[in-house]
Amino acid sequence: MDKKKVSILGAAGYAGVELFRLLYSHPRINIYKLSSVSFEGQELSSVYKNLGNINNYKLVSQDEAIESADVVFAALPHGLSEAVAQQCKGKIFIDLGADFRLNDEAGYKKWYGNDFAEKSLHEYSVYGLTELNREKIRGAKIIGNPGCYPTSIALGLYPLLKNKIIGASIIADCKSGVTGAGRAVTQTTHFTNCNEAFAPYKLAMHRHTPEIEETLSYMYSGEVRVTFVPHLLPVNRGILSTIYCDNIKNYSLSQIYNLYTDFYKDEFFVRVLPLGGAANISNITHSNFCDISLHVDEHTNRIIVVSAIDNMIKGAAGQAIQNMNICLGFDEKAGLELLPPAF
Amino acid sequence: MDKKKVSILGAAGYAGVELFRLLYSHPRINIYKLSSVSFEGQELSSVYKNLGNINNYKLVSQDEAIESADVVFAALPHGLSEAVAQQCKGKIFIDLGADFRLNDEAGYKKWYGNDFAEKSLHEYSVYGLTELNREKIRGAKIIGNPGCYPTSIALGLYPLLKNKIIGASIIADCKSGVTGAGRAVTQTTHFTNCNEAFAPYKLAMHRHTPEIEETLSYMYSGEVRVTFVPHLLPVNRGILSTIYCDNIKNYSLSQIYNLYTDFYKDEFFVRVLPLGGAANISNITHSNFCDISLHVDEHTNRIIVVSAIDNMIKGAAGQAIQNMNICLGFDEKAGLELLPPAF
Amino acid sequence: MDKKKVSILGAAGYAGVELFRLLYSHPRINIYKLSSVSFEGQELSSVYKNLGNINNYKLVSQDEAIESADVVFAALPHGLSEAVAQQCKGKIFIDLGADFRLNDEAGYKKWYGNDFAEKSLHEYSVYGLTELNREKIRGAKIIGNPGCYPTSIALGLYPLLKNKIIGASIIADCKSGVTGAGRAVTQTTHFTNCNEAFAPYKLAMHRHTPEIEETLSYMYSGEVRVTFVPHLLPVNRGILSTIYCDNIKNYSLSQIYNLYTDFYKDEFFVRVLPLGGAANISNITHSNFCDISLHVDEHTNRIIVVSAIDNMIKGAAGQAIQNMNICLGFDEKAGLELLPPAF
Amino acid sequence: MDKKKVSILGAAGYAGVELFRLLYSHPRINIYKLSSVSFEGQELSSVYKNLGNINNYKLVSQDEAIESADVVFAALPHGLSEAVAQQCKGKIFIDLGADFRLNDEAGYKKWYGNDFAEKSLHEYSVYGLTELNREKIRGAKIIGNPGCYPTSIALGLYPLLKNKIIGASIIADCKSGVTGAGRAVTQTTHFTNCNEAFAPYKLAMHRHTPEIEETLSYMYSGEVRVTFVPHLLPVNRGILSTIYCDNIKNYSLSQIYNLYTDFYKDEFFVRVLPLGGAANISNITHSNFCDISLHVDEHTNRIIVVSAIDNMIKGAAGQAIQNMNICLGFDEKAGLELLPPAF
Repeated sequence: MDKKKVSILGAAGYAGVELFRLLYSHPRINIYKLSSVSFEGQELSSVYKNLGNINNYKLVSQDEAIESADVVFAALPHGLSEAVAQQCKGKIFIDLGADFRLNDEAGYKKWYGNDFAEKSLHEYSVYGLTELNREKIRGAKIIGNPGCYPTSIALGLYPLLKNKIIGASIIADCKSGVTGAGRAVTQTTHFTNCNEAFAPYKLAMHRHTPEIEETLSYMYSGEVRVTFVPHLLPVNRGILSTIYCDNIKNYSLSQIYNLYTDFYKDEFFVRVLPLGGAANISNITHSNFCDISLHVDEHTNRIIVVSAIDNMIKGAAGQAIQNMNICLGFDEKAGLELLPPAF
Repeated sequence: MDKKKVSILGAAGYAGVELFRLLYSHPRINIYKLSSVSFEGQELSSVYKNLGNINNYKLVSQDEAIESADVVFAALPHGLSEAVAQQCKGKIFIDLGADFRLNDEAGYKKWYGNDFAEKSLHEYSVYGLTELNREKIRGAKIIGNPGCYPTSIALGLYPLLKNKIIGASIIADCKSGVTGAGRAVTQTTHFTNCNEAFAPYKLAMHRHTPEIEETLSYMYSGEVRVTFVPHLLPVNRGILSTIYCDNIKNYSLSQIYNLYTDFYKDEFFVRVLPLGGAANISNITHSNFCDISLHVDEHTNRIIVVSAIDNMIKGAAGQAIQNMNICLGFDEKAGLELLPPAF
Repeated sequence: MDKKKVSILGAAGYAGVELFRLLYSHPRINIYKLSSVSFEGQELSSVYKNLGNINNYKLVSQDEAIESADVVFAALPHGLSEAVAQQCKGKIFIDLGADFRLNDEAGYKKWYGNDFAEKSLHEYSVYGLTELNREKIRGAKIIGNPGCYPTSIALGLYPLLKNKIIGASIIADCKSGVTGAGRAVTQTTHFTNCNEAFAPYKLAMHRHTPEIEETLSYMYSGEVRVTFVPHLLPVNRGILSTIYCDNIKNYSLSQIYNLYTDFYKDEFFVRVLPLGGAANISNITHSNFCDISLHVDEHTNRIIVVSAIDNMIKGAAGQAIQNMNICLGFDEKAGLELLPPAF
Repeated sequence: MDKKKVSILGAAGYAGVELFRLLYSHPRINIYKLSSVSFEGQELSSVYKNLGNINNYKLVSQDEAIESADVVFAALPHGLSEAVAQQCKGKIFIDLGADFRLNDEAGYKKWYGNDFAEKSLHEYSVYGLTELNREKIRGAKIIGNPGCYPTSIALGLYPLLKNKIIGASIIADCKSGVTGAGRAVTQTTHFTNCNEAFAPYKLAMHRHTPEIEETLSYMYSGEVRVTFVPHLLPVNRGILSTIYCDNIKNYSLSQIYNLYTDFYKDEFFVRVLPLGGAANISNITHSNFCDISLHVDEHTNRIIVVSAIDNMIKGAAGQAIQNMNICLGFDEKAGLELLPPAF
């Protein structure tokens, strides 16, 4: 059987190289070509030494990578993907940037600074939160792969929102590993500024806010507002979101637990923890799983949901592959069946 | 001038050895004796190799350490300090455990499992949050040194509570370094379970909750309830609390900032960060400072306060020494004037 | 085709759970049963939360795990495996402990404290350093899987020793991640004692010394002596060995490089780095690869070889599976084709 | 008594800000002025947030910082200090760069690329390894403060070399925390490239080699050659050197131990560990101590010395202040009496 030809644009960034690594052992596709503006002409393995002697993936131009590919992943800086999507018509295009995540053009302009460049594409692009939009993804040609923070928050709250069990004003206190900041060298990502350090950043001003609110509001069928505060953790990978909700219907912990286990019973990649446990990034890093733990503070009548994903896998490359698998009619788990390591 | 004789009970625990280290270079006291149940008869420097060749501090019995001391610090497991306080009558007794932190005996019984053993002592013991109770501390004989989490939260909220600017239901999402768990060996503190890991624990069930609520309620002159969720950070030292409050009086960020800078203008150890900055544990570890940053989410009408301390210093040994300085009429900063290192 | 039934003894230890994780997605075997003394009766996933909802692997007794298995891996404390090997006659037995690593019974007694219990078994057991003994492993029934340090050192030096290019007195300065110390809770592995710390341990006294010397001597066809100094690194995984040799034949760096690339040209799991690079644990953790970089100090006429492996994979569970694959006639790479992640 | 006026050139670099922090609480000097090319006109506390509200140290030009100062520290890129030294005539000038570390101009040219610019200054400049040159430092006007690696190696070997107990070809396997790489942002110091990573760099090619060899040869009164291999450790601070020597006079461990304890008996900052212990960076970071542990491998007849310092203190700012104290006739420990913390 012919394998599908898959290209990666922006392969030398962190999301790009993680896509490469996971796709490299995917049983049903071939990696076709990789592009990079900064490293064009070099082997990917000369940039990422973990790839060792894999020496047949020279970084080429974007046009070369797109031509003849069946599937194109883009892991580019925000704002460059709409033109690429236009160029990829007829192929499956999966964008890991922000260009196709928002329906609301005004919100996009407010947070990203410009209008949609190719409005017509947004009419049929699909937001790639798999567990929310699986059916739409099945036939999609353009997929806006979700941000890492939005994925962790939306999966954590979906059952509560869908059933309107909580109030519409939510607090998401989120903590991310440093890979979330990407490959660029900055004082923020200097080892001595991250190690033995911990702080929030962009408090209530992060660009994932509109995506979070749009997704949660869609799940809720009503406007949801979120106080979103991300923090930088001194670890490589992982996002943990601690989410505080008003328990407006006075659900007990066991009711909530039953709701979640039932809601997610067919979702392989969502693991609802037994009561008493707490989600921990160390249990899901290097995998596509999302761990969710549930807690009630009766004293203040709040529900606390803790959700953990690997920001580079379920929060980026893994979910993108999960979406590709659905588009191409593969087993949704293909290439993603890695168990997370114990350490 | 005769220096005061200071003893430390439980000197081989983490708080105990930090007390020793800071007191060792304190200009106005002499370390008199150290006690330890587990290591009695050994030199403290045989347990803590950082102390090198300091070989005149053999760990003795509690009775021996107390006798003839002017000041006694106790860094003991919870529940042992009331009897010691009784024994220390006539001296200054500063307890780093929980026994003298709560006024509410019912709350103490609920969270710690027993009644006050020496009720009369609680009538004149003082809660040692320095910035709150400085005047009472001045003449105190028994000081209940605050917990690390309560210190960070209470200092973060004091101006807002005192002025009733926020609602009485508060969320404190707190993150602590591993020294907070102490010296005991457990799976929780095993390196491979902490490193590249991050998770909450004892969600809405941590024993610091009643202390936090009692202190905040006292500041507020009314009942305050707190959803308190601690997390374990993969760092040695530091607590960062991200605190979410309802902005019920619609204060602007600059109003809040002016309130804080005015409120804390004479407090050497509280540093209100310029607007735009965010508190970071890396800026205060190895010091007695508390850094506070202020933020408003207008969108959801919440005030966010971020407060960072070194859990072993302002959250334990440092504040205890600050209190001792006040009791003894020393400069409050004596022995604590260390600038935090940049890395 | 019937899949082979594979059991793991000591499955709740670090090597055991890593074996489980890797074997779980191995295409040609079924995990049959797991044993544990400490956790008998519990699910492995109740001990290791990373395994999530995998709930059909209850930890059973050793006898139950052995019976009916085709292949038995033992990840037991040193000294328990000879009896098990006896019990496993007729099966393939792969021991991750030290019992079958040494040929020299006197050396075993000196370093491990007792004689061989089952001398006859040692006549046909095979030392499982795959790249050294592949042909013997093919037909073996008892395999003594090498230690982590010996694997890294022996692979690093094999071409030099085989060709007698270096002197027979060698220095191996080795650094290991904390998983090497196992799951037991100790002060040594307490987070605050490892984090921001670095020190050697058991200098010139580590029990891997006789295994290293026996293996290197075998490669050299002559007695080799090694000054072996291990250090504990504040990372979860990985061993890096910096090995100093006398360049007695005055080989140039390019001669050495050519020797290595030729010597290892058919070894998938050994990657000789291009000149100018340096082996780094971050490039091989979470994989079965061994990275080797080559250096010459002309000034002192020494050859420096740097060798990096994942102590839990090529240094333990991965090499054990590689050996199993050979025994069973599978593709040697089966279940081990994971590319190391970039971060 | 008038306090001496001390200026720091290059105060916004890592060594500069550590000088500032330590000098800030020095009892006998005043910090006069700070210079920085990159941040001229800003407060140092705007670059280093750990300094909080210390707002009277604006970064000025180099000329302004030098004029009227009594003592000038320079923490500048290599090659800029000779001109400054010329300008500082009549003052005490302590250089933390490489310009005044080497006597051998040919060696300087080979490794740093140019001749001495101000030859005459080198005739009376003193190499500031305190324990080696204390008497010369007492009257010095120009001090070349040693590199961090050379300090750790030379202190570790001084008694052995002075007494010619070891052979003249030495191996120093050294490991340094990331602050050693300075404040500049690079891929090398990107958090995700350091964390969970470990590798050597510049093997047998590091620019500290000539300084190490010159110093050791001086101690030995004969030519010493060193294979010097530095590694980058995933910690903020600390250097640990594991040094391998030929035990040519067959000294026993206790003979060596007695030699060291006697040799260093009056050196406050050198701590020779009791036999059986091993030096660990965690025991000396945040202090000016050098910990040394001694080991013999009888089997290969090698002596192993392990030496640990804080690269930013004894390896840079602390030793510079120690030298200043000597020059100015202060207690050598002034401003450096910090005990290292336990964690």
